[in-house]
Amino acid sequence: MKVIADVSIVPLGVGLSLSPYVAACEAVFRRAGLKTQLHAYGTNLEGEWDAVLAAIRECHRMLHEMGVPRISTSLRLGTRVDREQTMEDRVRSVESKMKD
Amino acid sequence: MKVIADVSIVPLGVGLSLSPYVAACEAVFRRAGLKTQLHAYGTNLEGEWDAVLAAIRECHRMLHEMGVPRISTSLRLGTRVDREQTMEDRVRSVESKMKD
Amino acid sequence: MKVIADVSIVPLGVGLSLSPYVAACEAVFRRAGLKTQLHAYGTNLEGEWDAVLAAIRECHRMLHEMGVPRISTSLRLGTRVDREQTMEDRVRSVESKMKD
Amino acid sequence: MKVIADVSIVPLGVGLSLSPYVAACEAVFRRAGLKTQLHAYGTNLEGEWDAVLAAIRECHRMLHEMGVPRISTSLRLGTRVDREQTMEDRVRSVESKMKD
Repeated sequence: MKVIADVSIVPLGVGLSLSPYVAACEAVFRRAGLKTQLHAYGTNLEGEWDAVLAAIRECHRMLHEMGVPRISTSLRLGTRVDREQTMEDRVRSVESKMKD
Repeated sequence: MKVIADVSIVPLGVGLSLSPYVAACEAVFRRAGLKTQLHAYGTNLEGEWDAVLAAIRECHRMLHEMGVPRISTSLRLGTRVDREQTMEDRVRSVESKMKD
Repeated sequence: MKVIADVSIVPLGVGLSLSPYVAACEAVFRRAGLKTQLHAYGTNLEGEWDAVLAAIRECHRMLHEMGVPRISTSLRLGTRVDREQTMEDRVRSVESKMKD
Repeated sequence: MKVIADVSIVPLGVGLSLSPYVAACEAVFRRAGLKTQLHAYGTNLEGEWDAVLAAIRECHRMLHEMGVPRISTSLRLGTRVDREQTMEDRVRSVESKMKD
């Protein structure tokens, strides 16, 4: 089962600068071979359900190992069986409607 | 790794009555032996990370099998390594602060 | 426009004990006259869109005044025009399907 | 109060093609003068709290007027008082950590 996901990871108890932790998770997502696109409030991920969710678990595990005592993650998960759709398809589809 | 989660599953392409699908996923969560608490905009889940996430995947799989062509799920995932905390602890902790 | 919402407020830069801040926001929601139901990963709110969103803004404003430097809130917002529905209706509707 | 938001709007009861509705909301956000960046699972928004939230309400109102009977929106809201930060700052900050 393919999934397009969007994940925003919020580490708690390590102050206000979250970018080192977000960057560490980005590295995890890329090492996992996932398609990934960073944005200003999270990261889009595309891949097989198990691979995407294993990478998010690895991100939590690694942040805890880096000393983060608590994490609150917000995640969106989209699956569909009517047709294949990529992250790029979704953006292109909206943009084409905006030109109409 | 323990997780406290909150999941809101939105089936698309099956009209406006979502409760049969939410109920089907509730049954999945209970069969999986997870602690679960339904509320007006989702369900709290508590358990081992792998068990919780496997149950959410099973919910997507089953809804697609029931004829749902597309699903958009919103999920919160909380992990912590500083101490153990249950769903009940979290509610009680807020309520005790409200009485102060 | 009526809305049923679910809000999870995550204060950053104030350590790991979030319950005093969640309790302060609960008090804001109640003073605003909103229907509110606390759960283990957030709070259900029901009311007019403007009242609900003004209360969430007031919660952010008050937490910043209490010394919280940064906040990341996860929010779900449900509106419908096909029929009226309360928070209790939603829970009851799922529960009735589970007994079938 | 400035906010950086991320909004994913899910219209229900209108089939599986959501892009016309997402595009209509994008147009609302731009007409409102908000900084906006579309991605594969939502849209980043930046502006004053009241302007951002009024635009999201207008998006719900307009979709209902276009015939959407039910909407479930997932929203992230970030505020901070320790320093100013733009959407671009956030992406750049993570990317700079990835090069280290």
